[in-house]
Amino acid sequence: MTHGICLIGAGRIGRIHAGNLAATPGLALKYVVDPVADAAKSLADELGAAVTDLDTALADKAVHGVVIASATNTHADLIERAAGAGKAIFCEKPVDLDLMRTAEAIAKAKDAGTPLLLGFNRRYDPDFAALKARIDDGSVGRVEMVQITSRDPGPPPVSYIKTSGGLFKDMMIHDLDMARWLLGEEPTHVTAQASCLVDPDIATAGDVDSAMVMLRTASGKLCQISNSRRAVYGYDQRIEVHGSGGMVSAGNRLESSVRLNTGAGERDDKIQHFFLERYAQAYEREAAHFRDILDGRTAPLTTGEDGHKALILAEAAAKSFREGITVAL
Amino acid sequence: MTHGICLIGAGRIGRIHAGNLAATPGLALKYVVDPVADAAKSLADELGAAVTDLDTALADKAVHGVVIASATNTHADLIERAAGAGKAIFCEKPVDLDLMRTAEAIAKAKDAGTPLLLGFNRRYDPDFAALKARIDDGSVGRVEMVQITSRDPGPPPVSYIKTSGGLFKDMMIHDLDMARWLLGEEPTHVTAQASCLVDPDIATAGDVDSAMVMLRTASGKLCQISNSRRAVYGYDQRIEVHGSGGMVSAGNRLESSVRLNTGAGERDDKIQHFFLERYAQAYEREAAHFRDILDGRTAPLTTGEDGHKALILAEAAAKSFREGITVAL
Amino acid sequence: MTHGICLIGAGRIGRIHAGNLAATPGLALKYVVDPVADAAKSLADELGAAVTDLDTALADKAVHGVVIASATNTHADLIERAAGAGKAIFCEKPVDLDLMRTAEAIAKAKDAGTPLLLGFNRRYDPDFAALKARIDDGSVGRVEMVQITSRDPGPPPVSYIKTSGGLFKDMMIHDLDMARWLLGEEPTHVTAQASCLVDPDIATAGDVDSAMVMLRTASGKLCQISNSRRAVYGYDQRIEVHGSGGMVSAGNRLESSVRLNTGAGERDDKIQHFFLERYAQAYEREAAHFRDILDGRTAPLTTGEDGHKALILAEAAAKSFREGITVAL
Amino acid sequence: MTHGICLIGAGRIGRIHAGNLAATPGLALKYVVDPVADAAKSLADELGAAVTDLDTALADKAVHGVVIASATNTHADLIERAAGAGKAIFCEKPVDLDLMRTAEAIAKAKDAGTPLLLGFNRRYDPDFAALKARIDDGSVGRVEMVQITSRDPGPPPVSYIKTSGGLFKDMMIHDLDMARWLLGEEPTHVTAQASCLVDPDIATAGDVDSAMVMLRTASGKLCQISNSRRAVYGYDQRIEVHGSGGMVSAGNRLESSVRLNTGAGERDDKIQHFFLERYAQAYEREAAHFRDILDGRTAPLTTGEDGHKALILAEAAAKSFREGITVAL
Repeated sequence: MTHGICLIGAGRIGRIHAGNLAATPGLALKYVVDPVADAAKSLADELGAAVTDLDTALADKAVHGVVIASATNTHADLIERAAGAGKAIFCEKPVDLDLMRTAEAIAKAKDAGTPLLLGFNRRYDPDFAALKARIDDGSVGRVEMVQITSRDPGPPPVSYIKTSGGLFKDMMIHDLDMARWLLGEEPTHVTAQASCLVDPDIATAGDVDSAMVMLRTASGKLCQISNSRRAVYGYDQRIEVHGSGGMVSAGNRLESSVRLNTGAGERDDKIQHFFLERYAQAYEREAAHFRDILDGRTAPLTTGEDGHKALILAEAAAKSFREGITVAL
Repeated sequence: MTHGICLIGAGRIGRIHAGNLAATPGLALKYVVDPVADAAKSLADELGAAVTDLDTALADKAVHGVVIASATNTHADLIERAAGAGKAIFCEKPVDLDLMRTAEAIAKAKDAGTPLLLGFNRRYDPDFAALKARIDDGSVGRVEMVQITSRDPGPPPVSYIKTSGGLFKDMMIHDLDMARWLLGEEPTHVTAQASCLVDPDIATAGDVDSAMVMLRTASGKLCQISNSRRAVYGYDQRIEVHGSGGMVSAGNRLESSVRLNTGAGERDDKIQHFFLERYAQAYEREAAHFRDILDGRTAPLTTGEDGHKALILAEAAAKSFREGITVAL
Repeated sequence: MTHGICLIGAGRIGRIHAGNLAATPGLALKYVVDPVADAAKSLADELGAAVTDLDTALADKAVHGVVIASATNTHADLIERAAGAGKAIFCEKPVDLDLMRTAEAIAKAKDAGTPLLLGFNRRYDPDFAALKARIDDGSVGRVEMVQITSRDPGPPPVSYIKTSGGLFKDMMIHDLDMARWLLGEEPTHVTAQASCLVDPDIATAGDVDSAMVMLRTASGKLCQISNSRRAVYGYDQRIEVHGSGGMVSAGNRLESSVRLNTGAGERDDKIQHFFLERYAQAYEREAAHFRDILDGRTAPLTTGEDGHKALILAEAAAKSFREGITVAL
Repeated sequence: MTHGICLIGAGRIGRIHAGNLAATPGLALKYVVDPVADAAKSLADELGAAVTDLDTALADKAVHGVVIASATNTHADLIERAAGAGKAIFCEKPVDLDLMRTAEAIAKAKDAGTPLLLGFNRRYDPDFAALKARIDDGSVGRVEMVQITSRDPGPPPVSYIKTSGGLFKDMMIHDLDMARWLLGEEPTHVTAQASCLVDPDIATAGDVDSAMVMLRTASGKLCQISNSRRAVYGYDQRIEVHGSGGMVSAGNRLESSVRLNTGAGERDDKIQHFFLERYAQAYEREAAHFRDILDGRTAPLTTGEDGHKALILAEAAAKSFREGITVAL
């Protein structure tokens, strides 16, 4: 059975999802909706879909799923409308930058009985999935300490920073979700420290660009996260999980396996540049996961509720940093 | 412009090519031809192509290219027929196990003016392509010595061995092609040594399962190749190129970047199992290269002539091993 | 010129220092002092030194240096006595577990004008020294974030824990010293989180066995430290330094370069077991550094003052954990 | 019991051995003999030994062992004289460049009943010893193929080349010894190929600077060796052993574990420069092994007979290259 899909948002991440939705057996990208008519048309043409408006798409019974890749401040409304129309939802993170609004939208989807898949893409990365599988099969015993390194190659424009919700909600939220997933327990204590080291304009905009967080769960598991808006050597995405029986880690992916030896030492190839390269396979697998949800074969691995809980941690981290205290949840 | 393609051969490698041809923008898999009707039908159905016979396919003007993935002993005839019909050709290696027959078929394609792309897939592997790019950009100076390791995870059935032409023509021929490509010069001397270490039935069938070859070019460049039909740790495909200014190497790809540390030492994930996994991207890029050839934008990177020259080296290696001499070409 | 040395303490670490002092050109191990007569005699005999009491050793003009490797609670007194006798001092860390007493002993050595080398052995490790050299030569630009992982293979006996001063003063103090050294600035904010995950008896003894700390300096540099009393895969000692121009890291040393490939993946050899193996070279270089100090060619790289400052950080970390606040210094 | 040692030869390698002999418990370096009086005196003074002539040293009953590190063409005579005096012998490789002379000297030592340790230092390298231990404990099953890479950082002076016996006898002989050791069987077939790629003056001097060899044993085991007089990235010493159950390898040692990540990729530190650095520990262990021989606790791991057999292989390799044939032994 093939599920018709409506994509909302034809920007950078929308285009990624569109390509994967079109290539996933069992899904058919039927509509593209975007207020920017040119962007919608160009993307729809490329993939054999039609441009339409949201009402039309939601009224179409052949549309089983809605993929929301529009601006963050439209997510909650769109979730509610799609839920109202009984469509399965795949929404880019976050649901909303506001906790209350997030909870409302999730509740609407829940009431409507429609699945809500939230785009925490990293859980679909093959390397991190393999890491999780090793935890689950007991390879390292009981999980005790988690170390997450997540650094972007360079900072986004300050204009983006201003509407992003700040580093904790915009960037670290991915790592907070990974932490919850890997710890297998909810953090009860959050402590943060941060700085503006990369670009003083980010400080002027009221944000930080370098941050660290420590989490502690009820049973005493610990987690450290390290974030920076700059890593000149590429998108640095690494995780270590220490357990009673050993350590399992996942590293960066390189552009190739080529190594060069000259007088200066052995040089590996570059780390993949940014998330579009590193998480290309994760996005593919996310689309396939949405298909499996539509088929009724599985429930979402990353839910609105996961988004809500990660947002609570992000807010706690921001508060901890502001007030110089460990925030107990 | 979209080029209609006819695929001949719906076996294992044919299915790989079919999937890639169908997914390559600019190509349309129109026909599948295979004497085994069920195999042809199942593959054609899966990808929206039609089953037909060769005459029909060759008579169809919308068919611009023919992809030959049938049994080795049919290749030369099919090349000649496709060339006669004026179709561009993408043929799995080898053209033929016989040098004379190989030369004839190549000549026919040449006379017909049709491009003949021979499936030396490894040149399309992103890692080996990156290695070659480093050589070409002068990163290691003048190439002096090349080291090629190529080991299969396990031996094929003896029934396959019997019709394979033997290890030198069947397996090492890939490495001989890589050697020519990386040395940038034709070998003038070939010396081989070999054994049957893996399976005595292979010796009974008149073949070897472990072999080494040394090549020397006119300017004195040297190359070593090491082959085995068995590597219990996975498909071992590595290359080192030593030049006046350094060394560049390309290694194996692992199933994931996950590492496990327990009391026994740090363990990387497994090497990808075999050629379908390791060279998946190479096959994709090969299909895209065929599209570029059909577009008239490039000439084949791996030609019938390359197949002919590699076969000469393989025969020289077999002779060297048999007679205990270095064969001068 | 050869400097006579008196070693105080013939236990495990004393024996390490004794061997290195005896093997360092320019130093002569003249005396061993230890209340346990057998231990003193056996060590002295082995290395051609004499057993004596402290008064005799301090009265001997040929003794230029005193090496203190006795129980922690004797360090401050011995520093003061050696300083009173005008001897150069090489004291195992810490000076004392009490800040006041530490400051007093340092002041006595200062007043006496005798050099006081404190045994923060890790700064002498060739790998960490090479890491520091890369920072100093500007390879990574301005230092921004430091990540220190330090995990013991297994916990010490609870009897040791009870007199150790606790994880922050006993174990993390090494990492706090490394942090100060690598950041190149004094931390102004300290935040800690900790748990007892390895051995409940450690909790009963009032200590933790797993801990994390975040540091922030006046200019906003950040540092994370991760400690555990258990790493079943070996003594895990790694450092990453992120700067405006890149990252430099130093990893673990393995027992050999041997790798094993079987069906389970590629396995590196084990990490060196514990500090006696990993820091063997560091201890040798520390002894040579003491000789250079005695020669008047250099000042101590690791001073009593460094010990005092690291102890302040350790106490701040303990307080931060106890009170759930970030401690400003 | 302490064994008095007489060292013959105070040149570069003599100084290495002298330092290790002096530092090895159970050995006492008593005499240094060298026709260059200044070299002998300076080395003897440094290590508390005496300069003497050979007759005096051999007449001294306290001298139990003679270490021969003089010019190659003196080795055989010195072995015979030391054997005549009943001293245990540790001789740098080779016994002699001539097979007959080699056999004579070995026979003299055998007749005299004195142990003759030949300085094939690589067998004492901790990494290669660990590799061998993995073979012996069955980690890779039955050994099938061995791959040895051995490249010097740069060529020696042509004046040295002229008296060296040529690359096969001077350089590859180490690898031929390793091959015999690791294969666990005598090679029965030797094939070589070679070139002069590094320095044309080496060709003028009648030698090659780049060479490859293939060996085959009676049971069909295969081995490849690759040699070059130049590797601008450092002393490249690697071994791979493939067996029925897997592969075990030993790699190069780096100057430190420090890695640098900048825009160009991850860079490991340099490979150790040359044999004095790489094999420093091997030489130490060789001296300790000589002590164990003198103690009567073990027989030499590397004997004159090993030197003789490796020389036979080296001569066969030279002949194979010259005549373009596989030499059967």
